[in-house]
Amino acid sequence: MSDALVIGLDIGGTSTRVLVGDLDGTRVGAGLAGGGNPTTHGPAAAVVELRAALTAALTGVDPARVRAAVVGLAGGGKLAADPQARTAFDGAWRAAGLDCPYRLVGDALVGYVSATAAPDGSVLVAGTGAIAAAVRDRALDRIVDGHGWLLGDDGSGFWLGRRAARAALAVLEGRAPDGPLARAVRRRLLGTEEIASPARGTASDLVQAVNAGPPVALAELAPLVLRAYGADPVARDAVRDAAEHLADSLAGVHRAGLPVVLAGGLLATQTPLAAVLRTRIAQRWPTTAALPAGDGAAGAAWLAALDLSSRPAEELHRRLVRPAGTG
Amino acid sequence: MSDALVIGLDIGGTSTRVLVGDLDGTRVGAGLAGGGNPTTHGPAAAVVELRAALTAALTGVDPARVRAAVVGLAGGGKLAADPQARTAFDGAWRAAGLDCPYRLVGDALVGYVSATAAPDGSVLVAGTGAIAAAVRDRALDRIVDGHGWLLGDDGSGFWLGRRAARAALAVLEGRAPDGPLARAVRRRLLGTEEIASPARGTASDLVQAVNAGPPVALAELAPLVLRAYGADPVARDAVRDAAEHLADSLAGVHRAGLPVVLAGGLLATQTPLAAVLRTRIAQRWPTTAALPAGDGAAGAAWLAALDLSSRPAEELHRRLVRPAGTG
Repeated sequence: MSDALVIGLDIGGTSTRVLVGDLDGTRVGAGLAGGGNPTTHGPAAAVVELRAALTAALTGVDPARVRAAVVGLAGGGKLAADPQARTAFDGAWRAAGLDCPYRLVGDALVGYVSATAAPDGSVLVAGTGAIAAAVRDRALDRIVDGHGWLLGDDGSGFWLGRRAARAALAVLEGRAPDGPLARAVRRRLLGTEEIASPARGTASDLVQAVNAGPPVALAELAPLVLRAYGADPVARDAVRDAAEHLADSLAGVHRAGLPVVLAGGLLATQTPLAAVLRTRIAQRWPTTAALPAGDGAAGAAWLAALDLSSRPAEELHRRLVRPAGTG
Repeated sequence: MSDALVIGLDIGGTSTRVLVGDLDGTRVGAGLAGGGNPTTHGPAAAVVELRAALTAALTGVDPARVRAAVVGLAGGGKLAADPQARTAFDGAWRAAGLDCPYRLVGDALVGYVSATAAPDGSVLVAGTGAIAAAVRDRALDRIVDGHGWLLGDDGSGFWLGRRAARAALAVLEGRAPDGPLARAVRRRLLGTEEIASPARGTASDLVQAVNAGPPVALAELAPLVLRAYGADPVARDAVRDAAEHLADSLAGVHRAGLPVVLAGGLLATQTPLAAVLRTRIAQRWPTTAALPAGDGAAGAAWLAALDLSSRPAEELHRRLVRPAGTG
């Protein structure tokens, strides 16, 4: 078994990451491609990205050596329930020469284990959507939110983007003074900062521009809010409210003293939202360590290796997920 | 000109109303059919309802006598911009034997004039959507909201319905105690009040049930909130917050001392939301009279008659729009 390998996948909305490692925790190969979720990107497009990421990660590696796999996927349950998506995924899997079974887990779990080997804790994910989950024995336990943009995802990228569009409308209605965020939204959605007279025309154009795309595309306005954070009190309020929503979701699952991992595009990097949220977490749970998520694919590979490796979980985690020089 | 007639139409999401009157303010015919908005119901279905309502209203009347027409339509501007919808509407118009031109106005204006002949005031409409508008010289002036469910419609039926679904999810997440509203939502969306173990399964089913329909169908849950108002503090809070949103929108357009008309399915009848809103309006604007909307088709007919009739506007309004026995 000493030549056995494991593979981990982190399939997100904007990227697909793959990591191959051995049972000593040595990284053997890695792959990165665009978003490859078959249920959200469509099976055909997803397969292209999946194959690209798998091919890169398995370069120079005999895929038959891969004995265990963990696949982290937002709404992983949907892949199991969607025969067409499942067939597409399995096709890409076999095309890469892989024949070991894979375990589907939520992307929240992959985010959690990308930062810590602690069996119990919490994870808060905010990207396009938002979800909070308790982790118990390295499995997702209680979950709050993750309900999608129509009913939930409070404090997510969608939430921030919708807030930005509403702020721009409030200006056009004369209910709020103009400012950097509203101007940035007009520039993005209408191609100009100019306001028609009467402003109702510009408001209609803005509503129409948003409705011309899928609702979830509102998340693309979230970076405008983060960028305007230092210059516009409207953006500052939006970020503060988003952080409060996220902290509320976390409060539904978190147990004091255990670590919390901050994952997703809005929290894993140094954004104003992550900063405000960290302050809020430190206030509410002074004994809680807030850890930024790392490479989800490495976390997934570590989960896959746990049962096969003779090394202690923590040591394996340090080697495979947090090797020197990866932050 | 003494044999001239006018016609008014109020085309809403759930009903199409037509009223034919003469220049003395005597009602000559009326018609009622299902929702006939070509841009939301599709041209074919809309034409069926339009023709039914027009035929009923014009029974025993020579349509050539009709000299002026006003058509109230939510998003009336869209009809003008949508050639297919416009063609369908014009086809129904000619099929009814009508050859006079018609003036398209917003349904908010028709709601306003259904209650008062005062040239200046405000109107607040809450049905599936929500909009507030100032009326100046019997035309819509400043407008707040009416942005649709994705970006606005604060305090609307959609807003209340979404709030109801979220309240049901909060129960399933263990963030709120179970109650009459959450139970009613589960019964409506899932066919049972039962909660699976773990409750996350029921939460997923509920999210899936909502996402199986168009988002705007969430408005169908609004009556559950109104019904639970007396029995459930969660419903009470939702109604209070909706009223606050509506009052905020009104504040963006209202001028103290002028009348405000409450229109739309949630406000024109005696709902808990209308009652809470009336209290709120009385607190904010003690000198403002809040009037319930009446028959929008009669209001539209009155607008059509104004230029042709020699009677004073107020007298014509009293006869045509508020004849004895119509409230």
